[in-house]
Amino acid sequence: MTTQTGHLRIHTDGRGEIVDLTDGVRSVLRTSQVDDGLVSVFVGGSTAAVTTMEFDPAVVADVQAVLERLVPMSADYEQTRRDNRTNAYARVRASIVGPSITVPVTAGRLGLGTWQQIVLVDFDDRPRERTVAIHVLS
Amino acid sequence: MTTQTGHLRIHTDGRGEIVDLTDGVRSVLRTSQVDDGLVSVFVGGSTAAVTTMEFDPAVVADVQAVLERLVPMSADYEQTRRDNRTNAYARVRASIVGPSITVPVTAGRLGLGTWQQIVLVDFDDRPRERTVAIHVLS
Amino acid sequence: MTTQTGHLRIHTDGRGEIVDLTDGVRSVLRTSQVDDGLVSVFVGGSTAAVTTMEFDPAVVADVQAVLERLVPMSADYEQTRRDNRTNAYARVRASIVGPSITVPVTAGRLGLGTWQQIVLVDFDDRPRERTVAIHVLS
Repeated sequence: MTTQTGHLRIHTDGRGEIVDLTDGVRSVLRTSQVDDGLVSVFVGGSTAAVTTMEFDPAVVADVQAVLERLVPMSADYEQTRRDNRTNAYARVRASIVGPSITVPVTAGRLGLGTWQQIVLVDFDDRPRERTVAIHVLS
Repeated sequence: MTTQTGHLRIHTDGRGEIVDLTDGVRSVLRTSQVDDGLVSVFVGGSTAAVTTMEFDPAVVADVQAVLERLVPMSADYEQTRRDNRTNAYARVRASIVGPSITVPVTAGRLGLGTWQQIVLVDFDDRPRERTVAIHVLS
Repeated sequence: MTTQTGHLRIHTDGRGEIVDLTDGVRSVLRTSQVDDGLVSVFVGGSTAAVTTMEFDPAVVADVQAVLERLVPMSADYEQTRRDNRTNAYARVRASIVGPSITVPVTAGRLGLGTWQQIVLVDFDDRPRERTVAIHVLS
């Protein structure tokens, strides 16, 4: 096998910002010239996550609102009590959603649904520079 | 390496229906004749997810009930306000649970626990035809 | 390609115990002598999950507290009604968080963030012996 590697550098404003990574992943895939295999997408850091969704403003707003309801920015967190952290919620959300997905490649194309994009969700409460690692296996 | 590919076509009734994919994945694995490697299971679409669970009616009922409590079918969603969508909740649930898992293969067998099955969860609010991509890497 | 395999045997006390797997994964990676590739981490069983987080006591406490609030140990579960199960919540939490992640390897190193560890979360309500499968693909 070969592993082909690419990295995406993403600036985010944090606070639940959701960034569409699909074109970036496709670009790494094209460079790799892989026809059949697997793409792994992984974000380094404990306050961001990778998943898929329809990248649409209303979907983005709903995902953000639900996560704020389930794991609020302001609540009684041990991290806040102990270390005065203002982004405690971000670590909890990131660990539930998870840092990685794998997407199949068939005939040189990502096996996504028509309305399905690969996204980075940055839960931190401040702007961040994120590195997303793209590995193409074949 | 080789990548061996199979696709499962699954009819679901939506509304949180959970389908056991384990036999389908095993069938692709047998065809691949891979002894040691990895199986990736991925569902295309933004209203379904792939995970593992004990595929038992009571577990299925509990997972459905908890997700309905946390992310209700009927709530105040931007997608509903803006686009009259009735399946807004489905996109939120799918993005939290996630579209893909990877399962190890050792000595030609899936590395699942005894009471652990690979499942598709279809959150959409209507019947759907789903395609699940199985990639065996070795 | 080659697939290199390792297994970690982990004793946990259950009840949401979170175990740092990073050193164990690194040890399998070193043995594999892989420079560029992918590591898959998977836990067998339907009451445990694998994800990443900052492995810090306050983060661990917050993740445990949020999951207890969202999916309480004691609630009205069908598994309890039907089968007298005391760990119904554990299956629900595990299916939401998920059993597997993939972590990139570049220049022989895991592509984790500085404050990001690979963790096992054991949701069961009693001590368990867990087997975590580590597959290194390259």
